[in-house]
Order: sequence, then structure tokens, then C-alpha cells
Amino acid sequence: MQGQAQQQAYDRGITIFSPDGRLYQVEYAREAVKRGTASIGVRTQDGVVLAVDKRVPSPLLEDSSVEKIHKADDHVGIASAGHVADARQLIDFARRQAQVNQLRYGKPIGVETLTKEVTDHIQQYTQVGGARPFGVALIVGGIDNGEPRLFETDPSGTPYEWKALAVGADRGDLQDYLEENYDEEADLDGGISLALDALASVNEGSLLPNEVGLATIDVETERFEQFERDRIESYLEENDLLGDEDEADESDE
Amino acid sequence: MQGQAQQQAYDRGITIFSPDGRLYQVEYAREAVKRGTASIGVRTQDGVVLAVDKRVPSPLLEDSSVEKIHKADDHVGIASAGHVADARQLIDFARRQAQVNQLRYGKPIGVETLTKEVTDHIQQYTQVGGARPFGVALIVGGIDNGEPRLFETDPSGTPYEWKALAVGADRGDLQDYLEENYDEEADLDGGISLALDALASVNEGSLLPNEVGLATIDVETERFEQFERDRIESYLEENDLLGDEDEADESDE
Amino acid sequence: MQGQAQQQAYDRGITIFSPDGRLYQVEYAREAVKRGTASIGVRTQDGVVLAVDKRVPSPLLEDSSVEKIHKADDHVGIASAGHVADARQLIDFARRQAQVNQLRYGKPIGVETLTKEVTDHIQQYTQVGGARPFGVALIVGGIDNGEPRLFETDPSGTPYEWKALAVGADRGDLQDYLEENYDEEADLDGGISLALDALASVNEGSLLPNEVGLATIDVETERFEQFERDRIESYLEENDLLGDEDEADESDE
Amino acid sequence: MQGQAQQQAYDRGITIFSPDGRLYQVEYAREAVKRGTASIGVRTQDGVVLAVDKRVPSPLLEDSSVEKIHKADDHVGIASAGHVADARQLIDFARRQAQVNQLRYGKPIGVETLTKEVTDHIQQYTQVGGARPFGVALIVGGIDNGEPRLFETDPSGTPYEWKALAVGADRGDLQDYLEENYDEEADLDGGISLALDALASVNEGSLLPNEVGLATIDVETERFEQFERDRIESYLEENDLLGDEDEADESDE
Amino acid sequence: MQGQAQQQAYDRGITIFSPDGRLYQVEYAREAVKRGTASIGVRTQDGVVLAVDKRVPSPLLEDSSVEKIHKADDHVGIASAGHVADARQLIDFARRQAQVNQLRYGKPIGVETLTKEVTDHIQQYTQVGGARPFGVALIVGGIDNGEPRLFETDPSGTPYEWKALAVGADRGDLQDYLEENYDEEADLDGGISLALDALASVNEGSLLPNEVGLATIDVETERFEQFERDRIESYLEENDLLGDEDEADESDE
Amino acid sequence: MQGQAQQQAYDRGITIFSPDGRLYQVEYAREAVKRGTASIGVRTQDGVVLAVDKRVPSPLLEDSSVEKIHKADDHVGIASAGHVADARQLIDFARRQAQVNQLRYGKPIGVETLTKEVTDHIQQYTQVGGARPFGVALIVGGIDNGEPRLFETDPSGTPYEWKALAVGADRGDLQDYLEENYDEEADLDGGISLALDALASVNEGSLLPNEVGLATIDVETERFEQFERDRIESYLEENDLLGDEDEADESDE
Amino acid sequence: MQGQAQQQAYDRGITIFSPDGRLYQVEYAREAVKRGTASIGVRTQDGVVLAVDKRVPSPLLEDSSVEKIHKADDHVGIASAGHVADARQLIDFARRQAQVNQLRYGKPIGVETLTKEVTDHIQQYTQVGGARPFGVALIVGGIDNGEPRLFETDPSGTPYEWKALAVGADRGDLQDYLEENYDEEADLDGGISLALDALASVNEGSLLPNEVGLATIDVETERFEQFERDRIESYLEENDLLGDEDEADESDE
Repeated sequence: MQGQAQQQAYDRGITIFSPDGRLYQVEYAREAVKRGTASIGVRTQDGVVLAVDKRVPSPLLEDSSVEKIHKADDHVGIASAGHVADARQLIDFARRQAQVNQLRYGKPIGVETLTKEVTDHIQQYTQVGGARPFGVALIVGGIDNGEPRLFETDPSGTPYEWKALAVGADRGDLQDYLEENYDEEADLDGGISLALDALASVNEGSLLPNEVGLATIDVETERFEQFERDRIESYLEENDLLGDEDEADESDE
Repeated sequence: MQGQAQQQAYDRGITIFSPDGRLYQVEYAREAVKRGTASIGVRTQDGVVLAVDKRVPSPLLEDSSVEKIHKADDHVGIASAGHVADARQLIDFARRQAQVNQLRYGKPIGVETLTKEVTDHIQQYTQVGGARPFGVALIVGGIDNGEPRLFETDPSGTPYEWKALAVGADRGDLQDYLEENYDEEADLDGGISLALDALASVNEGSLLPNEVGLATIDVETERFEQFERDRIESYLEENDLLGDEDEADESDE
Repeated sequence: MQGQAQQQAYDRGITIFSPDGRLYQVEYAREAVKRGTASIGVRTQDGVVLAVDKRVPSPLLEDSSVEKIHKADDHVGIASAGHVADARQLIDFARRQAQVNQLRYGKPIGVETLTKEVTDHIQQYTQVGGARPFGVALIVGGIDNGEPRLFETDPSGTPYEWKALAVGADRGDLQDYLEENYDEEADLDGGISLALDALASVNEGSLLPNEVGLATIDVETERFEQFERDRIESYLEENDLLGDEDEADESDE
Repeated sequence: MQGQAQQQAYDRGITIFSPDGRLYQVEYAREAVKRGTASIGVRTQDGVVLAVDKRVPSPLLEDSSVEKIHKADDHVGIASAGHVADARQLIDFARRQAQVNQLRYGKPIGVETLTKEVTDHIQQYTQVGGARPFGVALIVGGIDNGEPRLFETDPSGTPYEWKALAVGADRGDLQDYLEENYDEEADLDGGISLALDALASVNEGSLLPNEVGLATIDVETERFEQFERDRIESYLEENDLLGDEDEADESDE
Repeated sequence: MQGQAQQQAYDRGITIFSPDGRLYQVEYAREAVKRGTASIGVRTQDGVVLAVDKRVPSPLLEDSSVEKIHKADDHVGIASAGHVADARQLIDFARRQAQVNQLRYGKPIGVETLTKEVTDHIQQYTQVGGARPFGVALIVGGIDNGEPRLFETDPSGTPYEWKALAVGADRGDLQDYLEENYDEEADLDGGISLALDALASVNEGSLLPNEVGLATIDVETERFEQFERDRIESYLEENDLLGDEDEADESDE
Repeated sequence: MQGQAQQQAYDRGITIFSPDGRLYQVEYAREAVKRGTASIGVRTQDGVVLAVDKRVPSPLLEDSSVEKIHKADDHVGIASAGHVADARQLIDFARRQAQVNQLRYGKPIGVETLTKEVTDHIQQYTQVGGARPFGVALIVGGIDNGEPRLFETDPSGTPYEWKALAVGADRGDLQDYLEENYDEEADLDGGISLALDALASVNEGSLLPNEVGLATIDVETERFEQFERDRIESYLEENDLLGDEDEADESDE
Repeated sequence: MQGQAQQQAYDRGITIFSPDGRLYQVEYAREAVKRGTASIGVRTQDGVVLAVDKRVPSPLLEDSSVEKIHKADDHVGIASAGHVADARQLIDFARRQAQVNQLRYGKPIGVETLTKEVTDHIQQYTQVGGARPFGVALIVGGIDNGEPRLFETDPSGTPYEWKALAVGADRGDLQDYLEENYDEEADLDGGISLALDALASVNEGSLLPNEVGLATIDVETERFEQFERDRIESYLEENDLLGDEDEADESDE
């Protein structure tokens, strides 16, 4: 209804409301999230699975330096999608909050509490002038009192709790895939399969082990565990998703 | 009377007066409230009812994480509509004010006092530069000296006291429904029925238990109580408002 | 003389002078005052009368929550017109000044002194950047050393002393009515009659008790007293101004 | 030489130089002074006379509340023209400076010293960003070591010393009148006559006692004295300037 | 080469460079200097002469209040041209620097040192945002270790040392006159004659004693001395420059 | 898809998101990097090689003053490309971080830790207002616990780990060259050859010793070592890359 | 490639990147340098030579007050070109740094260290908002541990080390002259001849002694020495560069 000229007005200034009650800077930050490769979280009865697409633009780039899964605390992992440098700021913030909680109360921070401290921090950047919003979405997974929990933080600073979710590129297709295939009864391995299947579904059906990141937070151990390449490769093979690396290289040329 | 070009001028800057004495940023924040799903408050002789529409966009999203009813203090509940992250800021502010009051005066904060501290906080964001207004309306319900009280805070920072009110989407229709059907003599169950009937009236006559939030603050107990899904389902059944969940799922497809 | 384009220039920025020496933001704030319902103040030999139009947009809204008459100190009342949330800020400021005066000098603040502290506060918001002016006018009534005093504060921060005045909607007609009918010899009841007559004159000749606010500050008691609905109804009946509530409701439909 | 478009550029921002070396915001503030009713100062051998036009827009407005002559110290009076709320700020500043001087040096502040402290304060608002200039001119009259002194402060922050001057509306005509009729030998009564004659000269030859403010600072007493209405009326009668109040009222209708 | 549209861009903002490396705000401040009446400084072997044109717009304005020559310290005088209120700020700054030097080092400040502290202060206002440049040029004259010194400060904050110079209106013609007639061997009286001749050369050959300011800083006394009207009149007479005051008055009419 | 007009909007303000989720100021800062001459980093089993193109525009300019390789700590070297003055700021920041780490923990800072402290610093300049991003990319090479590490920091504040990379002019061609010729088994000399070959590949096949900078951080010594001109010349000769200096001079003319 | 309209966008705001990665405000500051008269530095085996063109616009202006060569420390001299007032700020900054170094470490500051502290200071003004860049280039010459050193600081904050360089007007021609005629074996006198020859080459082959500034920092003495007019005249005569002063004066007329 409103023309392009009017919309431009909201692009320039600080984060203010448009006549229809929207915050364009926040919506543009959401676009920054979509520009990032996909990240997936799946909650199972036995724990939480984090899986990410981390394709690297050059064979000389170390896969490990494309940080998309981070340990926030012993019992909490975070996957991100969007503006990488912004993600690092929020991860650091989350880690400091976890440490402060441990120091102050002598026990690990709750996953929900941690998520909400992060979203409150994000919200400030959408209301108070002098800074732009964070161009990143986080998937926060962990164990609260023996219960697996899975949260999302979006650029507006809203926390959501999910059974399974995707953020970043192809979110629409991935979320559809998760909705169709999610099984409340699945164990951790089932969750891993679902996450990898979903990622493969938007990658012509196969994945390369170095282009995937995988981590779990197990209800038993209450420990965040990031998977090595070999273990990822086994999972891909088990799920019949292992791509042909040479083929991929050729197609790059 | 004023053309679109002129109106644009007020969209860009900080919150300033237009030639006809309006604060456009505040009015746009009201549009942000309308973009949120509806929340209803009903005051009865026996206490206050808070009811909210919390339809979730995905079956994988945890209904419980769509926070629209919050406990502000033992005797005060708050329902919100509009920008979710902004609502969280105001709820946190309200909780801190309640705690400070308890610490300072050794007794619970009054519902009216609490509401006005929140609206004064909101007003600051409409007058002093460097920030945008809050894009949220709150319904504050509680018990003051044995009396049920029901307040609204709007984005301008004005407090209103109501017998029954709706904020958010469909406010017009909902408020009409409440005005036509409000009964000063009703008890808490009557208030719950009115609130659910109103919500159903803009949802083709039926509601799903997971898409509704319900809470009361009872004059007897002076305690905020949020209802579980089962209890909501019973109420919907009693009031002949229970929708068919499968049908809803189908219509989504 | 100046075209619309030029005028726009002054709308956008902070409060600065226009080429003809006007402060547009202050003038627009005056428009915000006119958007509010009317408030009236009448000074009589026996005290000051404050009367306000407080029609509520919904029968479910508590009349009492439409705050237009406020107690600033035991001997000072303030009626407001304009942006409600701004009024609350100024009332709070006035109350703090009254308390500070009591603490510092051990006696109640003078009505004139209080008014001027408020107007100095208002002026700051019209000269120093980073905030907008207050969109509200106040009528400050009280007793100074046994003398009734009646002041106005306007959005520029100018104090005026009046025998009788109106602010807000219909100011022009109301002020004309007051000028024609003001009687220097009137007692408090005469002042109340004048104020109600004036309000009725712009409301088709009658008023509903719940749509009127009334308060006095009596020279005898030196106490601010806000009237209950029953007493207002008696006054309306006495002055043959009592409207028909049902009719009003019908006309709403 | 420069078109209207260029001039607009200087209207919007803070106080900066135009290409021809002018400060438009200061010049616009001078227009704000012209929008105020006239004030006159006359220095005689026996003291200083301050006279102001203080016509009130409504008979219900207390003449006394139209403050145009202020006591700054026992021996200093100030008349103002322009933006009333700004004048109050400068008067308050002047009073504080006078008190500080008394406390620090144990003697009254010099009239010239006081004027220059005020003009330095005014200048700051024309050079440093974040605020607009003061839209007011002051006439500062007083006694320095037995000598009558008469100063002007203008919106640029420049101090001038005068034998007789006018500021505000009709400044041109009034200043011409003063130049033609000023008598260096006149006593205080002669000064009062000159000031009233000048004011009458731009008011169809007559004045109403309630529309004039009059004050003197006498060399003998070194005391600022503001005149009551009766005394003003006598002076008007003596000078054959007394207008017909009823006629004035009629002409208003 | 650049059109008017481009130039406007530099008028609006803070002091920034134009594409050709100029600071327009500083150049416009130089225009403000040209708008002021002329001031002249002449250095002779026996001391420094300061002479200023101080024509007053009204016979009722006290000539003495048109401050163009100021005593900065016992041995330093300053003449100014341009924005009067800005000049006062710089003079005050210079006086404080002189006092600080006396307190700190127990001896009078050097004329060159003083000038450079003033120009450093001026420069700050051309580089750091939030304020405009000073619209004034100063001529600083004084005695350093028995040597007469004569400096200029310009709005960019550059110090220059001169044998003789003019600033303000008619600078071009006056500077030409000084260059043609300057005599390195002249004594103080010779310097006074040169300064008055120069001023008269742009005033139809004659000057009125009340329209000229004159001061010297003598190498012998090392004291700043401002001349009274009588003494100025004598000098004008001696130099055959005395104008006819009545004629001047007539020509005003 | 978006026209030039829209893009301009993002050029002017602070660093904000565009509608497609990009940060133009950061992307323009990347252009500033491309404007700088190329820098290359190569990680080998025996250590890290840093090589830079440092052609100087004049034979009178000291080659050594074109700083493109810097020692950050005994075991860490940094090569830069882009805005030279910005690079100096980041190098200084890195050095201070290294010193602080040594003081606080009594051991050298990790290369990865150091890189991430630098990127977090860079990110702040892309999110918080009042400053522009850094227009520089850094290649950070060093030894972590006996392991050679090679990182990049880009203007968005993202850290990447590489086996070999190029930044600055001709990045595309250089990176292609590195990808085709990188040998994981190479020793330090092999790394030097690769880096020099790459640089020569975009310089018509030969290099002059004074136009190349070369440094290594050896796994054995854990020491940063910058090469003198003679040693560079030997390497160029060995690799048959040594250009003819006279010829280069001629082509300049 | 980009039109004039686009370029304007970068002129107005603070120092931000253009789409092609340039900082226009810094480039415009370089234009300010070109507007200044030329300065030259020559490094010889026996020390450093600084020579400047300091033509004065009026014969009444003291040549000595056109400051283009400054003593920064006993062993360091600085020549400047560009905005004079900015140069003074940087010189003062350099002097303070030299003093601080002496106080802190008990020995003179290194020439390179000093230069880099100045360039870091300059860089801040190009990155952090609220100020403009410095419109000046400095030539810093001095002795470091017995070695002559010659540096340049440019408006971006980049330090360069030179054998010989020119900044300011005619930089291109002067730098060409220096490149063609520089002799690495020259002694101080040779350096002086080169510098004066270069200056004369762009002044029709001759120079006037009062229009040239000359200084050396000798390796022997490690002392900055500024030359008097007589000595400059001798050098000009020796080098057959002495112009005819009367002729110059005539050509001015």
C-alpha cells in the first residue's frame, strides 16, 4: 500500500516505528539472518541436537573457523545464523551471564533464564538510539533440571521455545521438513537423523562431513558435546547422506 | 487534510508534535499493538480474569513460550499485546517496582500504584530523545485491599481503569462484545465465560485449548493463578467453545 | 504568507525559532492541548473551583480513571487538558516541589511559587534539545495566605493568573461564556454554577454526573476537596443541567 | 541576492553562520522580541524609569500576572519584551548572580556587571549546540555608586548602555519618539512622562492604567519601586493620557 | 566551478571540509567580521596604537557602551571587529589567561603567548563539533620585554604579527592606506595620526570624536591607556579631521 | 534490483541494515581493503609465512616506512591491507592485548585468542554509532602451543582461520593461485616460494626486492622474524622471480 | 564513474566510507594541504634540511609570524603545509609528547616514535565522529641515535619516511625536481642548495630572503637551528637564487 519512497524514510534513521507499527531496522536484521547458512535445533527426549550448514567458500579456509556452534556453558550450546561478528558478541554475552550466575548462585544458569537475558540484551539495541540491532538469530539448547530445552532468539529480542526449528537460509523449507518429520518419541540419534535429513533435503540430498557442524546436549551427562568430523561422517553414512567430495569440488569449478 | 508528504516528515525524526498536536511515533506504536493477537481483561466481584489469544504459527513451537500472561507479583498479573520484546521489558520493570515496594514498605505494591509507575516509565520514552516508544499495551489486573482492579497502559503512557477491556487485534469488535455482554454481578466463572466467548466471537465461534491463555487473580486468595491446558479445555467445553484441533490443522494446509 | 514547504522545515527538528520568531513545536503542543477535553477554573471570594469535562469513550471505562483533577498538596488542586501522560509528569513534578518546600521551610508552598516552578520546568523542554515540549496546559488553584489564587501554565512555560479560565477543547467559546457571566462577588456555589453552566453551554445544555469532575479549594478550610458523583449530581440537578443518561447511551448507538 | 531556498537551509540546523556572516537563529529570536508588547527605559538625573505596555487579552486575566517588570535586586529592575518564559529564565539567572555577588563580596552587584553576566549567558546559547537562543530582550535599570544606569541585552548577547530605549513591538516608532523628546535635564517625573507619552503615541494617544506597568529606581533611595494601579492612574491623568476603559471594552466587542 | 547547490551542502552541517579543502563555516565567520565596523592597529617605535570606528545607530545610545577596545592586562589592549558578543567571550578568555599567567609565574603574560592561547581556543571551535566558530577578529597590542608587539587573531584561529593592520568593514581600502603611509620611524603621535587618517579616509575625510575609540600601549609606561573624548577631539583637530557634529545629525534625518 | 537512489540512502548515515540485510558501510570498508596492495599468508608445517606487496610511489620514499608487516608479539606477526592509518590502530590494539595477557597470566597470548579480541574490537565499530568501521583486513600468523596458526580479520569483525590466503588488491586472482598451488606438506621455504610466486603472478612474473616484505614465524623458534632486503633478494633469485630494477624505473617515466 | 549528486552525499556527513572505499573528508583535507604554500624536507648524511615558502600577502605583515617551521624538541624540527591553525594544534601535541617522553624516560623522544604518536592522533579525527580531520601535512625532521630521519604525516594519519619530500602547493613539480636532483652523498649545504633550488624552480628561478624559511637539524650537534634572514640571503646569493625585492614590490602593484 505504501510506496517505495515512503519505505526509504525508515531505512535511514534509527530504529523507529513505521506508520503500520513495524520496526524496519529489525525486519532488515531478519534479512541478515536469512543471508546466513542454515542452523537447526531438535529437541528429543534424551537431549538436544544442534546441526548447522557450514559450507566454506574456499578449500584453504579451515572448516573449524566457521564458528556456528558454540559452547555457552557446560550444559548449554548455541547455534547461530546470520551476521557472524554479531553472533560472537551475543555468545560472549551469554557466556558472561552463565559465569556470573555460577559465581552469584553457585549453580549453573537455567537455559530459559540464559535465553531471556540474551533477548533482553538484544531488545535494548532495537529501542535505544546510537546502535543498530543484532543481525543474528540464535538457537539455544541445553538441559534444565534434567529436561531438554530448545530456544530461539530473534533480532527483535523475542524468545521462543521450540521442539525443533531452523533459522537462516531456507528456513521456510527446513521448518516445513521438520514439522512433517518430527517425532516426539525420538531419541538423540533420531534427532540427529532428522536434523541431517532436513539439511540434506535442501542440499540435493547429500552432505559433506566438513560442511556440517553437529553437537548434542545429553540429558544423561548434561554436557554439551561437539562432534568431530569422523563422527559426523559416520552419521552421514548411516543415514545414507554422505556426498561425494570430489564431485562437489568439480561442481565448484 | 495533510498530504502524505507532510506526514512523512514526522515519521523520520524523534518523537515530536505534528502541526495538529499529535505524536506520530506514539500513534505508530499503537499500530504495533494492533499487530499483536488480542488480550482481554474482565473484572468481576470475585476477582480479575485475564484471557489471551496465543495462536502459534507452527506446531513445533511450544505454546508455553508465547508469553502473553505474566505474573508481576503474587497478587498482580499482566496480559500484553503488541511487540513481544517490548512487553518483556515493561514486565521486568513492573516486577522490579513490586520488589522495591516490598523491600521499602514491607507490603505488596498497590495495583494502581504499580500501573502508574509503569505508565510514567512509558511516557519518558515518548518525550526524551534517543529512544522509541514502547510498542505494547498491557492489561494489569490484581487485588488492592480486597478490591479487584483492572488497568490498561497504552503506548503514550496513559493509565486507564476498566471493568473489562480488550487490546491488540480486533480490539474494536472485542470491546463491542464486552460492552454488550458485561455483567456487573458476574462471578469469576462468569468473567471467564465472558472473556472466552469474546475471544471465540472473533474466531468463528470456537477456540483450541492450546491457543488460549487464561489466568485469574481471586479476591479470596489474592493470588495470581495461571491455568493449565486441561483446565482451559474444561472451560471451553463447559462454554461449548471447544474447537476441533484436527480441523484446525487441516485448514492450515 | 509562508508556504507549506517552509513551514515543514520547522516541524522536523528540535525546538528552534522560525523566521517570524515563533516556536512551532510549542505551537503544536498547544494544539495537543486543544485535542483534550475542556477544563475550567473559577476563582471566587470563598475559594477556587475546578471543573472538567471527562466524557469516557466506553461505558466499561472507569470514570474515576480519567484523571483530570489532581491534588498537588493539601491546599492546591490542579486540573489539566491535553496529553494525559504529559500531565501526569507535571503533576508529579508539582507534588515533589510541594513536598520539598514543606521539608525545607516547614510550611506549605505558595500557589504562585508552585506554578512558577512548574512553568520553569516546562520552559526547559522548549529551549534545550533532546526532548519535546509538554503537550498539556494546567489550571493550578489554591489558597495563599487566605487568598484564593488561580493560575494557568501553558506549553511555552508562561504562568498566567486568572479570575476564571478554560483550557482544552472549545476554549474560545468557554472563555467567552466565562467573561460574560463571571461575577466577582460570587461565593463557591456561585463559582460551581458558573463552571457547570459553561461546560453545559458547549454540551447542548446538559451534563451527566459521571462525565464531569468537580473540586474546590475553600478559603475557610484551605483544603482541596474532590466531589463524589452524588454531590455532582445534586449540583447538576440544582442548576437544571442534569442530562438523561439513557438518552446519551442511545445516541451512542 | 540569495533566494528563499538558500535561506531555509539556515533555519533548520543549529545556530551557524550564513554565507554573509549572519546568525539566522539569532535574527529570528529578534523577531520573537518584536512579537512581544513594548517596554521602555528612560534614564534621568534622579533615577531610572521602566514602563511597559501590558495589555491583557481577556478581562479575566489578572493584569498583575503579565510580568514585564521584575525586581532583580534591591537596586536593580528589569523590563522585558519577547518570549515570556525565556524572560523568566534570564530574570532568575540575574537574581542568582545578584545574590552570589552579595554573598561573595558583601555588597550589591553593579548594574553593568550584572548586565554583562546576563549577556555572556545569552551568548552561550548562540554558539554552543543543543539549545536555541533566548527570544527576549531585557532593559536593565539601576543605580551604580549613586549613578543611574540603563542597559539593554539583546538575543545575540550584546550589552548596550542607553539614555532611553524601547524594545518589543513598535520599537522603531517608539525609539524615534524618545530621540525627539529626550531631555537630559529631566527629573524622574519628567522621565515617567516621557515614557508614558511614548507608549501613548503608539496607542492612539491614551492608555488605561491596568494596561501599563511602571517602576523607578531612584538615585536617592537606591531602591526599585513598582507602581500600583492608582499611582499609574494619577500619572496618566496628570499627563492627560488616561483612556476611557468602557470605550476600550466596547471596541473589543 | 562548483554550483550554488553544492555550496549549500557545506552551509548546513558542522564545520567540515569542502571538496576544494575549504572550511565554509570559517569563511562565513570572516564575513561576520566584515559586517562589523573597522578597527585599526599601528605599531610604532614608542608603542602600539589601537583605533576603532564606533559609530552608534542612535544618539540615545551611550558611545561608551559600544565596546571595541578592551584592556586585557595592564600592558595589553585588544580591539575587535565583528560579532560583539563573541568578542566579549574571547576578551574574557584572554583576561583569564593573563591572570592565570600572573598567578602561576608571578609575571605578566607575553603578548605573543597570550595571542596564541586565544587562537588555539578559537581553533577548537572550528574543528570539534557542537559549536560554531567565533565570528570576530581581534587586534592584540602590547609590550613584550620593552618591545611593542601587534597581533591579529582571525576566525580560523591563526595568529599573525603586523606592523599595522585593519580588520572589519573596508579592510581592503584601509589596509591599502596603511601600506602606503606606514612609517617605521614614527612615534606614538605619528601612529595615532596614521590610524585616524586611515579611518577618516573611508569616512569622507572627517570623524566625530564620539564615533572614534583610541588607545595606546606605551613602551615607556608599559601601560594600556584608553583616551577620553576630549583628548580624541584634540587629536582630530590637530590632524584636521574633526567633523561637524550638527551636519552629521542633519544628514541622519 | 534496487536502484542507485535507494542505495545512496545507506551511504550517508551510520552503519545500519539495508532492506536486504546488508551493512553498506562494512561493505564499503571492504572496498577500502581492496584499494590497498596485496598481502599474503601461508601456513606450513614448519611455521607461517607473511608476504606483502609494498611498491612505493616515489624512489625517495623509504621502503621501510611502508609498514605492512608488523610484530604483534614475539610469536605473532600481522600483515595488513587497506587503510594504513586504521591498520596502525588495530596493530597497537593487538600489541596492548598481548602485553595485558602476558602481565595477567604470565604467558604469551594465544594466536586465536588475540585474533578474536581484535575482531570483537572491530565489530564494535560496525554496531555502535559515532564512528566508522575499520577499512583494513589483517592476516595474523603465529604459533599456538607449537602449532602454526593463520587467521584473517575482516572489516565486519569476523575471524577466519586459513591454510593460505590473500587480502587487498587482486585478492581473487591471488586466492585462486594459492588454492591451485598450496601444498600441505611444504616446509617454510616452500611456503615462501608459494607466497612470492603468487605475488609475482599478478606482477608480470617478477618482483623487486625492495617492493616485497617477507616475514616468518617458525615453529622451532616460536619467533617472528622479518627479512632484510638481501635475504629477500636471495629468495627472489632462487625462485627466478628477480625483476630488473632499472627497467622498472624506466617504465615509471 | 559516480555522478556529482552521489559525491555530495559524502560531503555532508561525518567521515564515512564511500562505495569505492574512500574517505572523502580525508581527501578534502588533502586539498586543504595543497592550498598552503610549499614546504620541503631533505635528508643528508650530515643532517636534515627544512625549507619553506612563506610569502606574505602584505608588506606590513611580519614575516616571522608566518610560522611554517617549528621546533618540536631540541633535536626535532617540523615544517607544515595547509591549514595554519590546525598545524599549531599538532605542533603543540608533538611538543607535549616530547616533554612527556623526557619526563617519563629521561631521554629525548625518537623521531619515528614522535611521528607515529602524531599520526595516531590524526587518525582518531578521521574515525571517531564529532570532529573533522586535520587539514595539514607535517614534515618531521630530526636525529635518532645519530641518524638523520625525515618523516611525513598526512591527513589520513599515515606516517611515511622520506629521503626528500615536498608538501603543499606545487607538490607534484617539487617532488619531481627532488627525485631528479637528489644526491645521497650530499652534505647539509648540498641539502640546503637542493631545497632552495627546488623552491626557486616553481618561483621563476629566484627567491626573496624574507619569503623563505630555512632550518637544519645537524647530526653533529643534534640541535634544531632556524636560520636568520641574513644567513638565508647568503645562501640564496651563493646559489644564485636571490631575487630583486623592488621588482617584486612593483609587480605587486
